[in-house]
Amino acid sequence: MTTIPDHSNHPISERQRAVEEDVVQRVVHSFDDCADPRLRRVMVSLVEHLHALLRDVRLTEDEWQVAIDFLTDAGHITDDKRQEFVLLSDTLGASMQTIAINNEAYGDATEATVFGPFFVDGAPRIELGGDVAFGAAGQPCWVEGTVRDVDGDPVRNARIEVWEADDEGLYDVQHDDGRVAARAHLFTDDDGGYRFWGIKPTPYPIPYDGRVGKMLQAVGRSPYRASHLHFMVTAPGCRRLVTHIFVRGDELLDRDSVFGVKDSLVKDFIEQPAGTPTPDGRVIDGPWSRVRFDVVLAPGAATDE
Amino acid sequence: MTTIPDHSNHPISERQRAVEEDVVQRVVHSFDDCADPRLRRVMVSLVEHLHALLRDVRLTEDEWQVAIDFLTDAGHITDDKRQEFVLLSDTLGASMQTIAINNEAYGDATEATVFGPFFVDGAPRIELGGDVAFGAAGQPCWVEGTVRDVDGDPVRNARIEVWEADDEGLYDVQHDDGRVAARAHLFTDDDGGYRFWGIKPTPYPIPYDGRVGKMLQAVGRSPYRASHLHFMVTAPGCRRLVTHIFVRGDELLDRDSVFGVKDSLVKDFIEQPAGTPTPDGRVIDGPWSRVRFDVVLAPGAATDE
Ligand SMILES: [Fe+2]
Ligand SMILES: [Fe+2]
Repeated sequence: MTTIPDHSNHPISERQRAVEEDVVQRVVHSFDDCADPRLRRVMVSLVEHLHALLRDVRLTEDEWQVAIDFLTDAGHITDDKRQEFVLLSDTLGASMQTIAINNEAYGDATEATVFGPFFVDGAPRIELGGDVAFGAAGQPCWVEGTVRDVDGDPVRNARIEVWEADDEGLYDVQHDDGRVAARAHLFTDDDGGYRFWGIKPTPYPIPYDGRVGKMLQAVGRSPYRASHLHFMVTAPGCRRLVTHIFVRGDELLDRDSVFGVKDSLVKDFIEQPAGTPTPDGRVIDGPWSRVRFDVVLAPGAATDE
Repeated sequence: MTTIPDHSNHPISERQRAVEEDVVQRVVHSFDDCADPRLRRVMVSLVEHLHALLRDVRLTEDEWQVAIDFLTDAGHITDDKRQEFVLLSDTLGASMQTIAINNEAYGDATEATVFGPFFVDGAPRIELGGDVAFGAAGQPCWVEGTVRDVDGDPVRNARIEVWEADDEGLYDVQHDDGRVAARAHLFTDDDGGYRFWGIKPTPYPIPYDGRVGKMLQAVGRSPYRASHLHFMVTAPGCRRLVTHIFVRGDELLDRDSVFGVKDSLVKDFIEQPAGTPTPDGRVIDGPWSRVRFDVVLAPGAATDE
């Protein structure tokens, strides 16, 4: 390989600019016969932005090879359980941006955040006031709130799915014993109210033994996610809400590895000393915490799930 | 999954724009502690262009999933012999753009084009006027020219590597029998001249049984490359030249699947009827062709090969 000088701060000639622009135009026009206008639009925009990137940074041939090797290794570590390309999308903020684009800010509606890889269909149903932990280790946490629409009217019978990691930072599916724990669904009452026992969220790292982890290390970033509790809330006539709540005071809030934190989603998890009476008379041996999360759903199409 | 309406031609609110811009800024600033300024620059530019793409096309969550699946499948078909990510780069013109960026237009120097996956180190040496075919099937083709520097001075003892597909559209390494054929190297004489027998190039498709092939089909593009003969020319004090020559009149010239064609590289392959005397007295049973390719090397660092 030729050793290529770094031209990245070097002005290029008009002739060179024309050569590069010609490459872009030829690639763009290769999609002229695409019969699907949406596909054509996406491919043309992909080409324009990709070439702009290469030209802006004056990518070297060695750097191009690093990118090819990165994608190759990411492909080889990816299987049914591990998805390095999703991690790449997450850590570049592309997942969060896609969510932002598809959940346009709407009045006072609660903001969305990343879905993450740990949702499981068919989690057990609990009654209002029930416990989602099913034995998962962690400090008990009372979670309550309401689900309303943007007019402030309660949404009765809204379905709330919740899921979270245990105090080892692991979801049930990351344990090898087939357990189902720290996940459940419940429905709001006639006043749109809901309440349940969960466990106080703790931080955990995204898998960092692949190329994405190496990238984070090379750029001085942590693989840790800020502590969070996942919610998915659905109701007829409302836009599906996929979000988390975060713990005010968590030092990872401003460096969540997947950029999921939004100010409006940071909640006060209030510590309750041992012996503090619980809302439902449950007897707890030690301290517990409580948090309130009032949800506002945007109007929207029913989900297809 | 929610069915997401196509917002792509729908004006977004200032508030929504601020939400999306905030995601970009948070991701960009996640690289603030990167100790390697070049890596930081590339990552920040990658993030900016990637997010601009997502926002410009208003990428849907289903489309994002298609992209993840595309990369996953590309990773799984890639092995030591098959490189789907290189094919993706090639068919999006990213390879050709990277080459353009790293081979800045210089005076009358011959233009570069894609290296391709079929170069093999250690091809046999031939003498001037020798035959590179080594039994590869195809119409004999006499190739001659000179190698000069940008001042017009002959470059003596320049090393010329040539390689090409046979008339089945296959390189030797694509046959299973370990043959070495249609590839060789030679050196220019004291006048910078060179000449050899090769075979007339024919078109061939890039491998199209993977996701890149499906993409080409979906957008109405052919996987075929315009007919070409590969050259790599190296000499002390000169920039390494990796290029092809193409066949004037080839109907694939304006739709080469990897965008390798440049007008200056399209050459006249002149058909010679059966019985036409050859330049070196070789007796050929049937028609043959001839082409002239004069090379001009830009000044540059010696290669590290
Ligand atoms: Fe999570
Ligand atoms: Fe080729």
